Amino acid sequence: MSAAVDPARGSASQAPIEYADASPEVRAVYDDIMATRKSDWVNNYWKVLAHHPPTLRRMWANAKEVMGPGALDALTKELIYLAVSVTNACRYCIASHGAAARNKGMTPEQHAELVAIIGLANETNRHAVALDLQIDDKFR
Amino acid sequence: MSAAVDPARGSASQAPIEYADASPEVRAVYDDIMATRKSDWVNNYWKVLAHHPPTLRRMWANAKEVMGPGALDALTKELIYLAVSVTNACRYCIASHGAAARNKGMTPEQHAELVAIIGLANETNRHAVALDLQIDDKFR
Amino acid sequence: MSAAVDPARGSASQAPIEYADASPEVRAVYDDIMATRKSDWVNNYWKVLAHHPPTLRRMWANAKEVMGPGALDALTKELIYLAVSVTNACRYCIASHGAAARNKGMTPEQHAELVAIIGLANETNRHAVALDLQIDDKFR
Amino acid sequence: MSAAVDPARGSASQAPIEYADASPEVRAVYDDIMATRKSDWVNNYWKVLAHHPPTLRRMWANAKEVMGPGALDALTKELIYLAVSVTNACRYCIASHGAAARNKGMTPEQHAELVAIIGLANETNRHAVALDLQIDDKFR
Amino acid sequence: MSAAVDPARGSASQAPIEYADASPEVRAVYDDIMATRKSDWVNNYWKVLAHHPPTLRRMWANAKEVMGPGALDALTKELIYLAVSVTNACRYCIASHGAAARNKGMTPEQHAELVAIIGLANETNRHAVALDLQIDDKFR
Amino acid sequence: MSAAVDPARGSASQAPIEYADASPEVRAVYDDIMATRKSDWVNNYWKVLAHHPPTLRRMWANAKEVMGPGALDALTKELIYLAVSVTNACRYCIASHGAAARNKGMTPEQHAELVAIIGLANETNRHAVALDLQIDDKFR
Repeated sequence: MSAAVDPARGSASQAPIEYADASPEVRAVYDDIMATRKSDWVNNYWKVLAHHPPTLRRMWANAKEVMGPGALDALTKELIYLAVSVTNACRYCIASHGAAARNKGMTPEQHAELVAIIGLANETNRHAVALDLQIDDKFR
Repeated sequence: MSAAVDPARGSASQAPIEYADASPEVRAVYDDIMATRKSDWVNNYWKVLAHHPPTLRRMWANAKEVMGPGALDALTKELIYLAVSVTNACRYCIASHGAAARNKGMTPEQHAELVAIIGLANETNRHAVALDLQIDDKFR
Repeated sequence: MSAAVDPARGSASQAPIEYADASPEVRAVYDDIMATRKSDWVNNYWKVLAHHPPTLRRMWANAKEVMGPGALDALTKELIYLAVSVTNACRYCIASHGAAARNKGMTPEQHAELVAIIGLANETNRHAVALDLQIDDKFR
Repeated sequence: MSAAVDPARGSASQAPIEYADASPEVRAVYDDIMATRKSDWVNNYWKVLAHHPPTLRRMWANAKEVMGPGALDALTKELIYLAVSVTNACRYCIASHGAAARNKGMTPEQHAELVAIIGLANETNRHAVALDLQIDDKFR
Repeated sequence: MSAAVDPARGSASQAPIEYADASPEVRAVYDDIMATRKSDWVNNYWKVLAHHPPTLRRMWANAKEVMGPGALDALTKELIYLAVSVTNACRYCIASHGAAARNKGMTPEQHAELVAIIGLANETNRHAVALDLQIDDKFR
Repeated sequence: MSAAVDPARGSASQAPIEYADASPEVRAVYDDIMATRKSDWVNNYWKVLAHHPPTLRRMWANAKEVMGPGALDALTKELIYLAVSVTNACRYCIASHGAAARNKGMTPEQHAELVAIIGLANETNRHAVALDLQIDDKFR
């Protein structure tokens, strides 16, 4: 009876749109995601974005370009993504990009080092701010 | 007249302690920093931490261990450090670790990709939170 | 047996105080919340704050003044609140202010645009920091 | 002498690329920014992104789509952008989107209310987290 | 000529309102700030908030109540305030509450320990998130 | 079948290593944690870090030094830790350090004041940033 439970009104928790229920426009994006990733499924991020097809299309174009082949290798890109996601405390993103990193070869030892660096950087970032450090001339 | 301008009382902006003015305990850390980095200078982070020698010693031990040789290469470690520092908006850390990354070979193209990934991750982190995404079973 | 499970000692997870169990002082605030909102219930935020009546009273006075009628319309105020809550990854606040926004007329299309803007701003914020952008004279 | 001061190596502080010095690819984006905004200049964000034309092109396409006409009016979009930028402490973005909001009609009274809401949301976000609030059934 | 430089339109950088130029309503708040603090001046936070007297009045009432005498001593309150301000990278707040803490007796040794704890907490917070730690039963 | 569910590959959710299953190196740290805390158990943070013994050893050395006896009393140290953890929305850390604070004597009234200060600081931090406050000369 409450507006909050009416999915037609933009609730924050929208059900993922499965391939079978998707419009041709949405299916085309799902197809490209699976083809690009050489995978047979699509994760919830895309299936929930699909409620707003222009955002689905736009974000996939961004992700494909930014995370695709370039000057940084695929695993390094995932480690950077994870470092941001941990700093922002995004559980979904840690789970999804953690899986992606493992699929691209991240070892337990590399994961442990990643976590240690993320922690250390978050620590020293605050030291630098607390102490109002002046940037060294050699860094300018 | 204000307590705030008395450097003896723990002002947030403390002057860096130069090598010439440092105690033997502090000099020993500076020496190890320079030897480890094969460098002839020490940056302000350490020279301001030096006001509290136990913290100087402790943090250098941490940095040396975490950022030293391991399962991730030196440049990748700096890129991860930068990703955290940008997400936290730490200007000093971006300047110092940006310089470190360039010294370890980061190219302008790699820097541009790093910035793009940091931005994209910060964007999709918020999408995931806003949409209260459920973690896919395959990621668990 | 552990101090952590003793609700009398300030556990972070305190049970909401229901109207029937509330003191007259607390009931007066609940009554004003319901009257102001033209609603017949009070949400958990207030019912947990009620463990410390001065904070309950103070925060309701703040919320009533800041979120009440003014130069910005009620829906815009909720969208701003949501933008902050998503950026801070506050699940409770996203749920409560998401419901409030829907009650004030937020459409699914508006919600989708809100999420897109929040994401984009979080992305470009990091670009600006990473690139150490100088503020244009025309913006000063 | 230090790598950090060599602009060719990806320094974080890159000079803006002015129109007169831009490649045809970059000029085409600048032209579209000015035409879309009915303005005769381009701000530093774009002129620094221009060091990496694919990012310049991509981000402008995103900004044009997300901030363009839609279900939310132009001023509301800027207020949401500002709420995120303040929460992230991005000085450049506060300056640039503050100017944009004023150009779209934000009054001093609306600005004061915006700041008050941003502050309140940041406050109550932490209350909700500190108290580990359970989401009310009516919000689900 | 740009809207951004017109102070009447809500620029983010507003000049502080000095006592001599303040309205009786604003002066009354300034007077109470100085009397409460046993000080002969008012800092910029209040003098800029004064552009919107309802916010000035409201925030002073909040600060006076929250930071006034209670179950935590005055110095401890300032240390908590500083811990938040450093974590949020708020330079103004670190400067103002750093001065307040020193005026309330914070020693350089206490300041060094404060900075160390802030750093450590920011580090372990990320470890906990990265490792998706389950809350121990004894903590519930 | 998915890499994500293979605990040997560095999944974010690793099972805690119990004392009975721990190596002598790990047991030595657990023993020191229990002896230092005069406790008969070890919490999950340490039992998950134990998958990477160098990090376990290093972090315990840090925590023991930073949180041990010094110029700030044990309860104040926990309150500072909590202020950071709440600001970062780290549920695990709020639970664990909340329990620690209660064990060190935090009263419900002190907890309520702590939460109020954390909220207020997060609010005024954003006011200061939004208004681009200049630091008062007396604070420099």
